[in-house]
Amino acid sequence: MSPSHTPDPARRNPQTTAAILEAALAMASESGLAKVSIEGIAARAGVGKRTIYRWWPSRGAVVLDAWAQRLDDHLYKRLRSAQSDDFEADLKQMVKGAWLGAIGDTRPVLAWLIGEAQHDPNLAAELRERLIGPTRELVAERIRRAKDDGQVAPDIDPYRAIDLIYGQLYYRLLVAPGPHDEAFTDSVADLALRGLRPR
Amino acid sequence: MSPSHTPDPARRNPQTTAAILEAALAMASESGLAKVSIEGIAARAGVGKRTIYRWWPSRGAVVLDAWAQRLDDHLYKRLRSAQSDDFEADLKQMVKGAWLGAIGDTRPVLAWLIGEAQHDPNLAAELRERLIGPTRELVAERIRRAKDDGQVAPDIDPYRAIDLIYGQLYYRLLVAPGPHDEAFTDSVADLALRGLRPR
Repeated sequence: MSPSHTPDPARRNPQTTAAILEAALAMASESGLAKVSIEGIAARAGVGKRTIYRWWPSRGAVVLDAWAQRLDDHLYKRLRSAQSDDFEADLKQMVKGAWLGAIGDTRPVLAWLIGEAQHDPNLAAELRERLIGPTRELVAERIRRAKDDGQVAPDIDPYRAIDLIYGQLYYRLLVAPGPHDEAFTDSVADLALRGLRPR
Repeated sequence: MSPSHTPDPARRNPQTTAAILEAALAMASESGLAKVSIEGIAARAGVGKRTIYRWWPSRGAVVLDAWAQRLDDHLYKRLRSAQSDDFEADLKQMVKGAWLGAIGDTRPVLAWLIGEAQHDPNLAAELRERLIGPTRELVAERIRRAKDDGQVAPDIDPYRAIDLIYGQLYYRLLVAPGPHDEAFTDSVADLALRGLRPR
């Protein structure tokens, strides 16, 4: 999964990598994301700036890497575990578990990364490769099964269904703020399901 | 509508203001938004940096102001003109007219502004005040009438309906890219309407 603009991450020194990623997340949570810099991360991790620039093209790339590694286990596990026979229950579990659970306290990091991605095409590509794409595939798989089971209408495009579900979440995160709680995530699923169910 | 952090915009010199806003938009379209700077705008408009900083707190604020003034006429006129008796036709007109028409060629400016807003709370507040809030009110008004006319289900919250519609547009703009064309905006309205109609 190594992006083309960096050398093979498998060749990184694991201790140094861990120290750099830890420093990036610690700086982000202590001083706020706007204050994160390559200089600051290097100083805190006890490495030279060149070591960081060798493996990551920008501060956004370091924060994404740190964040994605922390998220990976939780997020994909929660999405994969939604495998009951009840699509409504599974969808609510996926949205609540992933958005409030796995992403929950790092939602500001996600908003900041997507913000940075609007003027950083490399970061945008990495975000799609590491987070957006894999999430969409896992959810699309569950929607395909719901179509086979007759719980979602046969003419629904799974990826457009994902736009309908995740659009509500990201719109609230990035554009029109509001509470992110279970009442909201349940209503996201309910409102989407009104349109997705067979008629 | 003047935000609390700037002096009353009515007291700005109109010629200077026009020159500054024109310079900001010209720079954005010629060199790309990432290259826009207060220094560059000042040089191009033939004013001092202090004049700009007196009225606008950041380069994002200047671009937003320039963009919103250019947009205002088109956007709100298009949203207000959707007043037939057919909610489906009006919704398609609003989404197509506003998103493809009025916002259309300046969609990258919108994406960049929302990106900047993720780490600039003043800009986020201005965006909500000048664009997001007024748009939501206009669309909510049309949805309320559709509820009165029995074309939208009585238990639908108009603002959550807006999340469902605009969420799809912004998600594609900011998170999971795809074509922005009439086939897409029509399908945005169709998919939302499946869930909004009375059952």
